[in-house]
Amino acid sequence: MSWPDLPAGTLFGLDNLPYGVFSRGERIRRAGVAVGDQVLDLTAAAEGESFGHLLAAGVLNPLLAAGPDVWAEVRARVREWLAEPRHADRIRPHLVPRADIVSHLPVEVADYADFYSSEQHAINASRIFTGGDDLVPANWKHLPIGYHGRAGTVVASGTPVIRPAGQRKPRKAAEPSFGAAKRLDFEAEVGFVVGVGSQLGTPVPIDEFPRRVFGVCLVNDWSARDLQGWESQPLGPFLGKSFATSMSPWLVPLAALEQARVPQPAQDPEPFEYLRAAEPWSLDLTLEIRINGHLVSSPPFATQYWTGAQQLAHLTVNGASLRTGDLYASGTVTGPAKDQRGSLLELSWGGREPLAVGEETRAFLEDGDEVVISASAPGPGGARIGFGEVRGTVAPAVV
Amino acid sequence: MSWPDLPAGTLFGLDNLPYGVFSRGERIRRAGVAVGDQVLDLTAAAEGESFGHLLAAGVLNPLLAAGPDVWAEVRARVREWLAEPRHADRIRPHLVPRADIVSHLPVEVADYADFYSSEQHAINASRIFTGGDDLVPANWKHLPIGYHGRAGTVVASGTPVIRPAGQRKPRKAAEPSFGAAKRLDFEAEVGFVVGVGSQLGTPVPIDEFPRRVFGVCLVNDWSARDLQGWESQPLGPFLGKSFATSMSPWLVPLAALEQARVPQPAQDPEPFEYLRAAEPWSLDLTLEIRINGHLVSSPPFATQYWTGAQQLAHLTVNGASLRTGDLYASGTVTGPAKDQRGSLLELSWGGREPLAVGEETRAFLEDGDEVVISASAPGPGGARIGFGEVRGTVAPAVV
Repeated sequence: MSWPDLPAGTLFGLDNLPYGVFSRGERIRRAGVAVGDQVLDLTAAAEGESFGHLLAAGVLNPLLAAGPDVWAEVRARVREWLAEPRHADRIRPHLVPRADIVSHLPVEVADYADFYSSEQHAINASRIFTGGDDLVPANWKHLPIGYHGRAGTVVASGTPVIRPAGQRKPRKAAEPSFGAAKRLDFEAEVGFVVGVGSQLGTPVPIDEFPRRVFGVCLVNDWSARDLQGWESQPLGPFLGKSFATSMSPWLVPLAALEQARVPQPAQDPEPFEYLRAAEPWSLDLTLEIRINGHLVSSPPFATQYWTGAQQLAHLTVNGASLRTGDLYASGTVTGPAKDQRGSLLELSWGGREPLAVGEETRAFLEDGDEVVISASAPGPGGARIGFGEVRGTVAPAVV
Repeated sequence: MSWPDLPAGTLFGLDNLPYGVFSRGERIRRAGVAVGDQVLDLTAAAEGESFGHLLAAGVLNPLLAAGPDVWAEVRARVREWLAEPRHADRIRPHLVPRADIVSHLPVEVADYADFYSSEQHAINASRIFTGGDDLVPANWKHLPIGYHGRAGTVVASGTPVIRPAGQRKPRKAAEPSFGAAKRLDFEAEVGFVVGVGSQLGTPVPIDEFPRRVFGVCLVNDWSARDLQGWESQPLGPFLGKSFATSMSPWLVPLAALEQARVPQPAQDPEPFEYLRAAEPWSLDLTLEIRINGHLVSSPPFATQYWTGAQQLAHLTVNGASLRTGDLYASGTVTGPAKDQRGSLLELSWGGREPLAVGEETRAFLEDGDEVVISASAPGPGGARIGFGEVRGTVAPAVV
């Protein structure tokens, strides 16, 4: 039940209510909640509420820092405003068509870490590069492998992605060369945004996941495979990733994902105790990847070997502290089927089997290509919870 | 010439004037300039000046963002205040004994990246782990290898370093185990702090280095070698580093380092054009490492293969943007001699040749060990420019 007109089958019903930051022509950034085809201007609607001051910063960080009791309170109030007709007169003026807004980064990102938690992705990468499974390292099933990325180049969905320049050395070349990346790729990932920070020296127990993490979004971890291949030994990816990482505008609260929680794939060997959760945190999101409007893949997030809860526990087991606004991403989401692969590297098998994209084919991304990653998950009563999309178009290199 | 009493041979004369952030019992953090054994309370002294508002934030970020013209203006004014007796009556009340202050992080760190730019360190690491030079990768002389670290765990000098827990697998073990790190190490490094940010998609030309980078500090890149060894394939160091990175309190402006600039070691092969600087940016800093008060090494920074200017150009050549407060570090500084090694890993040759530390020996750090890294560089007229020190004591693991 709700008084605003919600389109039939909307992915943004009252059981979703994801948070974002938007503007409308004016320069002021406002907190918003997506509902149907509209956005509730939460900054305006919350004026006078006890939590109103948390929504006036132009980023969601103050709300995130306030912790799970406040998250629950705000969510309950927003739902009440939209469900009960007696609030319609006051709230209606704060509803804006979603088509009329510009979305911004929902949070000021503190640290950004990226994992590598899809077993099928790890296997595919190994087979593509070596022809065998030798590249799946011995540590892979013992810990969620990850690395830190560049927080300052996490960009809002829609930001053009300029093809990076850099060094690369094709396997057959004797010497490296410099120029625009030739093997530009996307990686479809799921991101987790930390609300409540932690103290240096104190690991975060895995079961604190829902009290530390505010919500979930989509991430495109753009990757220049040729730059990455040349630079990554021995310290991992650097410039092959740091030119841009795109983040979807809407943070879906964990509270909206109760129906999406599913049992985790079996883990063998059994992980160390700090990686064992009392409750399952695998999430049944189905991602969809479109290149220039053509659906090319539908990766199933529930197949990930390591969950967001395990990643959080691992990230902090050495005592590393969390800060409000920390973003960590799942790593490329790749399922067992061919049309469930989460990167073009896999979809084109290292460029050797170009992928059909409408009438055309792609080994890697070309200038002008638009990549859109969207997702949805089961909600209550057969409804679906939408994540919106993370979108980016490749712009030509500057060199 | 100066009117405050400066101790003979001080490393903090009027040609140095490094910036930091301090407090004195009260909770308010103030900008300060080290001079002799004292600190000028710059926040107070600059009240009423055109740049006073840049010094009231409790971190130096606003000053750093203001750019090189303002940096030069502030430096000239501070020098004038301390050099000309006519300012003594006004300025004297703002001088505080350095022994009476608590130092804090000088900047809010935006992104933190770490390089690997000492050739001798790379060679030593390879020999320790393989017995040969096989681990120095083919890319090493073509680009300054680096990776992103965790900005949120960059801590002020003096912060206790809690021994991290995590997974490790000794080479002879069949399975990994979990527990407190056994091979805890330091890495003596030089850090560069970015003042003026740059735009996404626009590489920063190498010769903009002195207009982008505000100053230089010391960094201890604490490393748990056993955690790092097990986790690093294929995405590089993660939890083996992210538990703590210590930063010295004083940012020495590049303007204080003119006499420290020396020709760079020959580079063969000649690097790509974006890595070729018109002017030399090797810096003749001599580091000193003390464990529990005993001098164990004196690494010479001038021997680094890649300079801070080259690292900056590389970091951004893919279009990655800079932000005010970005910190990037040189990587372990290791010279050719045994007593010039910048890590205990090297000084104890992987633990096989324990290092004499006073009456004791160390393979790796023990609980309670204090590591102090200090440095100085040539200044005008035979004076030396001091960097102060970055200090940390190992606290027992929490597990």
